[in-house]
Amino acid sequence: MVTLSKSRIEALSDGVVAIAITLLVLELKVPEVMSHHSDKEMLEALLELKGEFATYIVTFLIAGAFWYLHHLTFHFIKHVDGFLVWVNLIFLMFVSLLPFSSGLMSHLFIHPVSQFFYFGNMLAIALLLNVHWQYARRKHLIVDTEQSEADRLSFRVALTAAAFAASFITAIFFPTYSWAPLPAFLLVGWILEKTRR
Amino acid sequence: MVTLSKSRIEALSDGVVAIAITLLVLELKVPEVMSHHSDKEMLEALLELKGEFATYIVTFLIAGAFWYLHHLTFHFIKHVDGFLVWVNLIFLMFVSLLPFSSGLMSHLFIHPVSQFFYFGNMLAIALLLNVHWQYARRKHLIVDTEQSEADRLSFRVALTAAAFAASFITAIFFPTYSWAPLPAFLLVGWILEKTRR
Amino acid sequence: MVTLSKSRIEALSDGVVAIAITLLVLELKVPEVMSHHSDKEMLEALLELKGEFATYIVTFLIAGAFWYLHHLTFHFIKHVDGFLVWVNLIFLMFVSLLPFSSGLMSHLFIHPVSQFFYFGNMLAIALLLNVHWQYARRKHLIVDTEQSEADRLSFRVALTAAAFAASFITAIFFPTYSWAPLPAFLLVGWILEKTRR
Amino acid sequence: MVTLSKSRIEALSDGVVAIAITLLVLELKVPEVMSHHSDKEMLEALLELKGEFATYIVTFLIAGAFWYLHHLTFHFIKHVDGFLVWVNLIFLMFVSLLPFSSGLMSHLFIHPVSQFFYFGNMLAIALLLNVHWQYARRKHLIVDTEQSEADRLSFRVALTAAAFAASFITAIFFPTYSWAPLPAFLLVGWILEKTRR
Repeated sequence: MVTLSKSRIEALSDGVVAIAITLLVLELKVPEVMSHHSDKEMLEALLELKGEFATYIVTFLIAGAFWYLHHLTFHFIKHVDGFLVWVNLIFLMFVSLLPFSSGLMSHLFIHPVSQFFYFGNMLAIALLLNVHWQYARRKHLIVDTEQSEADRLSFRVALTAAAFAASFITAIFFPTYSWAPLPAFLLVGWILEKTRR
Repeated sequence: MVTLSKSRIEALSDGVVAIAITLLVLELKVPEVMSHHSDKEMLEALLELKGEFATYIVTFLIAGAFWYLHHLTFHFIKHVDGFLVWVNLIFLMFVSLLPFSSGLMSHLFIHPVSQFFYFGNMLAIALLLNVHWQYARRKHLIVDTEQSEADRLSFRVALTAAAFAASFITAIFFPTYSWAPLPAFLLVGWILEKTRR
Repeated sequence: MVTLSKSRIEALSDGVVAIAITLLVLELKVPEVMSHHSDKEMLEALLELKGEFATYIVTFLIAGAFWYLHHLTFHFIKHVDGFLVWVNLIFLMFVSLLPFSSGLMSHLFIHPVSQFFYFGNMLAIALLLNVHWQYARRKHLIVDTEQSEADRLSFRVALTAAAFAASFITAIFFPTYSWAPLPAFLLVGWILEKTRR
Repeated sequence: MVTLSKSRIEALSDGVVAIAITLLVLELKVPEVMSHHSDKEMLEALLELKGEFATYIVTFLIAGAFWYLHHLTFHFIKHVDGFLVWVNLIFLMFVSLLPFSSGLMSHLFIHPVSQFFYFGNMLAIALLLNVHWQYARRKHLIVDTEQSEADRLSFRVALTAAAFAASFITAIFFPTYSWAPLPAFLLVGWILEKTRR
């Protein structure tokens, strides 16, 4: 079995994430207001984009969090094999889908179906990140030192999946509250990490 | 003759592949359904995109497979020369064309001409990958060790070209079955690799 | 606490900056002049884009300057921690917004609101660059040598924020002159650096 | 004076070139032919894009050649200074403009103004590459060995600028023949390199 260096899958991941998060901005269409309009009309045209802006910021931050977790896993991973490359490629396929999911969310903010799709996309990314990390640990592809740090990362990656699973399920039954689990899980994770030390 | 390091052609390749596979998502247009529509209408609007989704997933996975094979060849390549740089640039030119070929395929799924163009694009990429790898082997630009691994890669790269040649030819005579050779060749390759060990 | 290598946040930054500055060109729409039109009509169609061209060039150069300052800070930074990663991600979120701000500016060149938004975007980037650099210095994440060079960079980064703050405030009260502070601050910075040596 | 490592300006360049050449494909619009159309109508719709395809291929290859020359210069360059970073940023600004110039060319293939703009863009890139390389040589930022190889690169970079200057001037007086100088200069360069050895 060829053991591959991890640098190129990191480079491809950085490239795909960078493009996906930069394409998010294409959902923000410059309003077609004429220059003779008043400042008030112009501001109103920008304020009409507030749903798109909120989706842009939130999706960017979530994608940033996924990239950071991915970065942390590769901090421990020594080298990769064929299975891990494919898990990463499918992970990137769902990351690439973010501009679509984000567009769906920002155009149809209050619609259950778009929330279902959006959180489904996020959940798929989170689950693949768990498969990627657990596989690397089981197959001993990671460095031996820093066992407790690796455990802490396992906890974080699992908690992320749990948070998006909660949002995904909430989107089906109570669409109005589908965003609520995210800050709740973030708070729980933060408290647990503080008390653990 | 200057022998160039391989890192920048790898970086350019990772960049072009990352962008090409991320641009595939632009074919998925967010449906223009209003928020007052029912969940059922919304789901139907998304289901109408099923051709585009199938093309997105398949093209992403094929492009991922090409990137992986390209990665594997550079695992063995020590350094590059001018000819190899140009083969790689033309390889990337066809990779860049994927969002167009994919768009053609997803809009006109059942049309022979779009299948002909799509598989022609894939075949061109596969053939250039063979030229790239065989040239590197002949010119002794690769590391000496792991002869059997290099042979195995030659087999894989050749089989990929054969699979797309089969799809390309099938698209002319039996367009309905033009996708069939891909899983068939994948299965044959998998069995041959298993029995070889 | 895990100390992370800086290479991947550099790679993500290079990717996001490269994409954001390349997407600026999408604001330049090819004029729909027919081929049978005279050379004069064609030239006029291109000249009508002069606002878009000016915005393209200026935004590209400003983004280039931000990238260069970011590059210089990482020349001194040894490794990163979680807080620094998040400051960088939010920095990149505002860099990603540049094609939108630039599009707003080029379509509505003389409008106060678009200038307010454009310089607000630039100011946010400049302030985050200051937070990033000052945090790295305070937390001793940078190399020990070259103290005077690090001081000089602190001065440059602060001056950049001051310049955009001046443009931002000018845009509210005297929108016609909102660009004026930039060359003025550039000149002041250049003179101060010359006299310091 | 801080001497900077060359790796990040290489990374940004690879990113910008990768994106610019991949965005070229967006000029190729998928024809809006319905699936019930005949194969002949479909082929005709694709053939109508032949101008766009020719521009895509030629622009990709020219951009590839510029990237290759840029790569070769950095093969010799040890480290960079502030001036070199700015020359490279302006170089990248003109590379980013390629999708626009290419779009202008492909929509208005026979029009003198679009040829003038297209070759002007190419000439600007070629001249900046000369400034970049000559500055690096004069300031002794390059490795000492391989003097004859550095001379050969100076010749190549200068010849490229001469070729595009010839096309640019021809575009003004004899637009029909503006492409002719490129293969002519390529041939001359090839013969001169062969006879020199």
